[in-house]
Amino acid sequence: MMDYGIDIWGDENFVIKNGKVCVNYEKKPAIIDMVKDLRNDGYRGPLLLRFPHLIKKQIENIYGHFNKARKEFNYKGKFNAVYPLKVNQYPGFVKNLVKFGKDYNYGLEAGSKAELLLAMAYNNENAPITVNGFKDRELINIGFIAAEMGHNITLTIEGLNELEAIIDIVKERFKPKPNIGLRVRLHSAGVGVWAKSGGINSKFGLTSTELIEAVNLLKENKLLEQFTMIHFHLGSQITEIHPLKKALNEAGNIYTELRKMGAKNLKAINLGGGLAVEYSQFKNEKSRNYTLKEYANDVVFILKNVAEQKSDLEPDIFIESGRFVAANHAVLVAPVLELFSQEYTESKLLLKKDNPKLIDELYDLYKSLKPSNALEYLHDSIDHLESILTLFDLGYVDLKDRSNAEILTHLIAKKAILILGDQQADLLAIQDEVQERYLVNFSLFQSIPDFWGLKQGFPIMPLNHLDEKPTRSASIWDITCDSDGEISYSKNNPLFLHDIDVEEETYFLGFFLVGAYQEVLGMKHNLFIHPTEATININEKNYQIENIIEAQSILDTLEDLDYDIHEVMDILNERISNSKLVDEKQKKHILGEIYLFLNDNGYLKSIGV
Amino acid sequence: MMDYGIDIWGDENFVIKNGKVCVNYEKKPAIIDMVKDLRNDGYRGPLLLRFPHLIKKQIENIYGHFNKARKEFNYKGKFNAVYPLKVNQYPGFVKNLVKFGKDYNYGLEAGSKAELLLAMAYNNENAPITVNGFKDRELINIGFIAAEMGHNITLTIEGLNELEAIIDIVKERFKPKPNIGLRVRLHSAGVGVWAKSGGINSKFGLTSTELIEAVNLLKENKLLEQFTMIHFHLGSQITEIHPLKKALNEAGNIYTELRKMGAKNLKAINLGGGLAVEYSQFKNEKSRNYTLKEYANDVVFILKNVAEQKSDLEPDIFIESGRFVAANHAVLVAPVLELFSQEYTESKLLLKKDNPKLIDELYDLYKSLKPSNALEYLHDSIDHLESILTLFDLGYVDLKDRSNAEILTHLIAKKAILILGDQQADLLAIQDEVQERYLVNFSLFQSIPDFWGLKQGFPIMPLNHLDEKPTRSASIWDITCDSDGEISYSKNNPLFLHDIDVEEETYFLGFFLVGAYQEVLGMKHNLFIHPTEATININEKNYQIENIIEAQSILDTLEDLDYDIHEVMDILNERISNSKLVDEKQKKHILGEIYLFLNDNGYLKSIGV
Repeated sequence: MMDYGIDIWGDENFVIKNGKVCVNYEKKPAIIDMVKDLRNDGYRGPLLLRFPHLIKKQIENIYGHFNKARKEFNYKGKFNAVYPLKVNQYPGFVKNLVKFGKDYNYGLEAGSKAELLLAMAYNNENAPITVNGFKDRELINIGFIAAEMGHNITLTIEGLNELEAIIDIVKERFKPKPNIGLRVRLHSAGVGVWAKSGGINSKFGLTSTELIEAVNLLKENKLLEQFTMIHFHLGSQITEIHPLKKALNEAGNIYTELRKMGAKNLKAINLGGGLAVEYSQFKNEKSRNYTLKEYANDVVFILKNVAEQKSDLEPDIFIESGRFVAANHAVLVAPVLELFSQEYTESKLLLKKDNPKLIDELYDLYKSLKPSNALEYLHDSIDHLESILTLFDLGYVDLKDRSNAEILTHLIAKKAILILGDQQADLLAIQDEVQERYLVNFSLFQSIPDFWGLKQGFPIMPLNHLDEKPTRSASIWDITCDSDGEISYSKNNPLFLHDIDVEEETYFLGFFLVGAYQEVLGMKHNLFIHPTEATININEKNYQIENIIEAQSILDTLEDLDYDIHEVMDILNERISNSKLVDEKQKKHILGEIYLFLNDNGYLKSIGV
Repeated sequence: MMDYGIDIWGDENFVIKNGKVCVNYEKKPAIIDMVKDLRNDGYRGPLLLRFPHLIKKQIENIYGHFNKARKEFNYKGKFNAVYPLKVNQYPGFVKNLVKFGKDYNYGLEAGSKAELLLAMAYNNENAPITVNGFKDRELINIGFIAAEMGHNITLTIEGLNELEAIIDIVKERFKPKPNIGLRVRLHSAGVGVWAKSGGINSKFGLTSTELIEAVNLLKENKLLEQFTMIHFHLGSQITEIHPLKKALNEAGNIYTELRKMGAKNLKAINLGGGLAVEYSQFKNEKSRNYTLKEYANDVVFILKNVAEQKSDLEPDIFIESGRFVAANHAVLVAPVLELFSQEYTESKLLLKKDNPKLIDELYDLYKSLKPSNALEYLHDSIDHLESILTLFDLGYVDLKDRSNAEILTHLIAKKAILILGDQQADLLAIQDEVQERYLVNFSLFQSIPDFWGLKQGFPIMPLNHLDEKPTRSASIWDITCDSDGEISYSKNNPLFLHDIDVEEETYFLGFFLVGAYQEVLGMKHNLFIHPTEATININEKNYQIENIIEAQSILDTLEDLDYDIHEVMDILNERISNSKLVDEKQKKHILGEIYLFLNDNGYLKSIGV
C-alpha cells in the first residue's frame, strides 16, 4: 500500500478512505464518485474538478495567520492581501475567490489591461486593487477610471516613464486619482550585488537613485499624497525564507527613508507573492522549508523591528500570494487508456531449427541463470542483444531472430531481478527500463505546462485501489504526438501504479495542485483544449456538481484559429457528396457522423474494445 | 555595422539593403515598410507577418532535392511528403500550404481528431493523409470516413490495440478501407540499447516481436493488403545526420523482412520529420551539420543499398517534415516600448557636506582611476557598494548615501571599461550587467513559447538602422509580469541594438523563424493573446497586405475563458452609474472609454509621451 506522499503535499485536504482518495471535508466524499457521476452524465475525457471550500480555506489561512501574528507582536499596521489574477483568471475560480474574500476585504491584482478590467468588474467594493507590470497610457487611463468608479486602486510604478505618464494624465482626468506605489529594486534578494533575478538586475523596480527622483517628481507635481505603497517581489515559489527576511529589512529601511523625505501617506509595504506550495510526492524532494505561520511571524516581527529602530510608524502589510491560494483548489482527473505492457513470455519465442549462434547462447543464458551468475549473464545478454541488432542492420539475421533476442533478453532481465531483488544498482537501472507505460487521456502541454517548461512535478495518484499494493513502476504518457509528452520517474523515486485491465475497468489518475498557472498557460498542442470542468460544492450531507463547462468542440476550436466553420462544413459536405465509393444512404450516414464528431471535443474516449 | 547572423539563419530569404531588412524576393521590399502600412491603418501591438512565397520555396526545395537525388541514383521508389498539422494549424498558413502543394501532391499529417477533420476538409484531392499518434475507436472511425470520402489515407498503428480496434471496425463500416502503417521502434536511434527517446524506449512504435504479431493479425483478418507503410520518427530538429543513416539502414531491413513475411503491398518507408532549421544567430552556436541536399542524397542512397542487398523493391520514400516547411514563413515584429537606461551621471550625485567615509572613498576612487589601477579600483568599488548596502539595511546610512554609492560604482565601472577596453574577463562580466534593457511590446510566452520551454533561441534583429553601428549590449524584456519574460544574452554572444529615443521614433525588432510550433503552443499569460497577423503577398512590382486578422479583443478573450460578457458589461455599467465621485456627464464619458477598451486587444500601445 502506498499513500503517494499525500502527507507531504496534501495539507490535510485529501485523505485515503476505503482505498479511495476522498476530500477531507464534511462527510469526506470520494473523488471517484464525483467522476463517475460526471461520466454517467456523458462527460468523457479529462475532467478538471474545482473545490471552492479549498479556496475559502486558503484565504482564511492567510488572514488568520497574519492577524494572529499582528496580535501576538502587538503590531499596529494593518494587513491586506490581493489575489494576482494572472495565476488563474477562469470564472469558476475567480467568482468563488471574490465571494469568499468579501468578509476579509480581499482584493485583486492585475498585470494587464484585460486583467484590470476583470478586476474592476468583479472585485469586492472597497477591496484593494493593485496594478503591476508595464503600463502604457491606456492602462494608466483605465486605472484612473477605476478610481473614478470608486475602486481603491494602486498603480505600481515600474519605471520613471510611467510616473511621467501619470503626471500627464492627471491633468486630463476628473478629480479621483489612483494611489501610486513604487516598485523598489532590492539588492538583498540575490547573492552578491550583481546577482540576477530579484536582485539589482531584476526585470522590475526602481534603484535608490530613481526612488529619490520619483519622490522629487511627485513633490513637484503635487502628487506626493497619492504615494502610499512600496512594492517588491522576490519571485514565485520561494522555497527558503532567509532571502525574504533580508529583503524585508532592506524594504523596511527604504520605507522609513522615503517617509523621512516627506512621503507622509506612504503607509504600506507590499511583499508581492512567492508563498510556496509543496508539490513534492517524495520526502527527499521537498521544496519548502517554512510554514505559513513562520512566514507571517517573520514578516510582522521584522517590520516591527525596523519601524522601532527608526522610530517610525509600523507599515501596513500587503501581500499578493497567488499560487498559495489557487494551487490546491483544482484536481485534474484523467482515465488511463492503455497499459503498454511488453509481455515477453517464452510462448512468444519463434525459435528455428537452426538459430544464429548468439540466439542459442541467449537461450542457454536464460535457462542456466542462477543467483551466482545472474549479474554476469545479464550483462552478457545485453551484449548479445546489441550484437544481434547490429547483425540485423547488416542483413545477417532476420526479424524472427531479432524478436527472439528481444524476448530472451527481457526474460533474462526479469529472471535476474526476481532472483537478486532490486538491491543492485545495475538492476535498478534495468528495472527503470521495464517501467510500464500508462497512456493517459490528457495533454501534458495543455494541463500541466509547467512540467514541460519548468520540470515542475505535480502529485499524481490513482483515485481508487489504494488498499491494494501497486505493482507496476510506471511512466505516464499523454496523448499528444510529442515525445516530450511523457512523465518518467527516476529509480530513486518511482511511481507505482496498479496493474488494471482497462478494458474491464476504467482506472483514473488524479493530478493534484493544478489550480495555479496551469490553466491559462495551457497550450493547444495537437489542438487539445482546456478540459471539461466542474465545480464540486460539498455540504454537510453530500456534494453537488455545479457549473459544468464542457470542453470546446472541434468546430469551436477551429473557429478560434479563425477558420470559417461554415466553409469547413461545406467542403466536407461537398466532398462526401462527390464520393464515388459509397452510396447515397451511406453518404447520409457519414454526414451525420461527421456532424457529431465536429460538435464533440477532440479528446480520446476509449481504446480497444 | 552588424548583420545579426543573417547569413547563418537567413537562408537567403532576407537581405539587408539601405540599412533595412528586406525580403529577398522580387523587388526586395523592406519589412519596415509593411509594418508602417499596417500601423497607418491603425494596427498596433505586435504583428505576425506571413510570407507565402517562403512556404512555396520550402515545398519546392524538398521535392526538388529528393527528385534530383532519385534521378541521380536512378531510384525507382516514389517520393511523397505530408505536412504535419501540429506544427501550425492556422488557416493563414495551412491554406497557402495546400495551394502551393497541389502540383506536388503534397499531403497532410494529423495527430488528433481535430487535425484529421481539418485535413479531410483542406487536403488536396488524392494527396496522401497520414494519421499518427494514439487513436481511440472514434478517431479510427473518422479515418474510415476519410477513406469512404475518397481520401488516400494511412493510419499509422502505434500499438497492437489500435490494430485490434481496426479489425473490429472493418466489420461495421462500408467497403473502402484506410491503408495501414506500422510504426516501428528502432534501436539504432539512441546510443546503446537502453537509450531513451527515439530508441527502444521511445514513446512510440512496435518492437520486432509486436511487428511479427501485427503481420500475423493482419493475415488472419485478411487485411494484409491494406498494410502499405512502415513509419519511424527520430525526433524533432535532428541536428546530426549520422543517427538518421543508421535508422534508415535498420528500417530498410525491417521493410524487406516484412515483405518476406508476405506483406506484398508494403511499399513505403516513412521517415517522419526531424529536418532541422538553423535558428542560431551566432557562428559558434550553429545547430545543424547537414544540408537538405545531403539529407535527400543519404536517404535515397541508403534505401537503394538496402534494397539491392536484399534484392527487393526500392521502397517509396515518405517524409513528414514540418518545422522545415513552416518555420521561416512567419516573422513577428514588435516595437520597443522603452529603454531602461540607468543613466548614472555625476549630476545625479547628492553628496552631502559630511558623507559616510565609504562614499568619500568611492568618490576618490572615481576621480583617481587610471589604466594602471582601473581593475583594482573597480573591485574596490564593488566591495564598497556591498558594504554601503549592508550599512543601509542596518540603518547606518540613508537613501541618499545608497544612491550616491550606486551612482559612483556605475561611474567607476563605465570609466574602467572606457580605459581598459573590453579585453578583460572581469570587465566583460561587468559589461554584462550594464546591458541595456529593451522593453518590447510582446509576450514571450505567447509568441516564442519554445524559448520558455526549451530555451530555443530565435534570431532577433532590428528592422532598420542597419547602416548604423549598434552600441548597446541588450537584453529583451517582454510585457508580462513574469520574471521569466526576459531574453538575456551571454557576454560571448551579445546582441547589440541601437540607442534610439523611442519617444521620437518607433524602433521595431523582428523575431524570425517563428512559423513552426510557436503559434499553437502560445500561452495566454496575463491574457496576452495571438497577435494581429497579416499575409504579405509579394509580386513583381510591389507587395500586397492581405488577410489581416486582428488580435482578439479583451471581451472575446474573457468570453473564451467562459465569462458571460454581458454580465461583465452590466456590472461595469452599474458600478460606474453608482459612483459618487464623478458627475453624470463624466460617467457617460467613462462608459464610452470602457467600451472602447473592452473592444480593443490588450497589448500595450505606447509608453511615455
